[in-house]
Amino acid sequence: MTTDAHTPDRGAIQSLDRAAIDSFLHAQRIARLGCHVDGLTYVVPVIYAYDGESVYTVTTEGQKVTMMRANPRVCVEVDEYDAVRGGWRSVIAQGDYEELAGDEVGQALALLRRRFARGEESGGARELGPSTVVLRIRLAEVSGRAVTR
Amino acid sequence: MTTDAHTPDRGAIQSLDRAAIDSFLHAQRIARLGCHVDGLTYVVPVIYAYDGESVYTVTTEGQKVTMMRANPRVCVEVDEYDAVRGGWRSVIAQGDYEELAGDEVGQALALLRRRFARGEESGGARELGPSTVVLRIRLAEVSGRAVTR
Repeated sequence: MTTDAHTPDRGAIQSLDRAAIDSFLHAQRIARLGCHVDGLTYVVPVIYAYDGESVYTVTTEGQKVTMMRANPRVCVEVDEYDAVRGGWRSVIAQGDYEELAGDEVGQALALLRRRFARGEESGGARELGPSTVVLRIRLAEVSGRAVTR
Repeated sequence: MTTDAHTPDRGAIQSLDRAAIDSFLHAQRIARLGCHVDGLTYVVPVIYAYDGESVYTVTTEGQKVTMMRANPRVCVEVDEYDAVRGGWRSVIAQGDYEELAGDEVGQALALLRRRFARGEESGGARELGPSTVVLRIRLAEVSGRAVTR
């Protein structure tokens, strides 16, 4: 975030180590994927699950899938802002987009189902339509920062 | 978001009209800026204020400023997720990065101060260091979507 310059006395920016980054990525639910093709940068929110190496989500064919197929190098961003105190935490990573097939689809859906279970059973694979895309982004070059106030 | 394919019976995706987009951008506090230079896409969260046409923030020189100076065409993304019900709302826009100078700096800082006031007075311009950048991104090609559950 960017209020640090404006309120320099409230909290210094700290780097998160890998354990803190992992804990944060396990705890959060929304990531923003940044992709780029032919001069257009596009940022889109996704509900994700994290297995310690990659983020997984399920979506339908559309602009972001078209763009990530054309250029699989994407940015993954996750953040949390404390509106009361003004502190924040964010993780930014580079990663490579992969579409899953076969057994990996079921494993990814099971991971997502455990993460987002709301006291109901979901049928999983039988609900997937022909335009459904289950995707994984392996994270590399991961960095995290936080300000505590 | 991307659970719509997985839970097709819960809520259809609706487009937000301009009034709903404006209301949402006035109400939210965190935007993600997506920028791209030389094959690297970078998404970074910022605390922003909105005046109906542009988003404003204040930051310090660093990777995102360097990148936006090199390629001012950026993506602005704002979202809100209801973790209890699973509904969500998002706005995605293209825009052009501009660094402010002169009177526009004070106007932008006043807008940010009103938005983020926490019952205290802030000195404004006298707190700005030499590496502080006050920036505006004029929004164009704005779209918004929502799922209510």
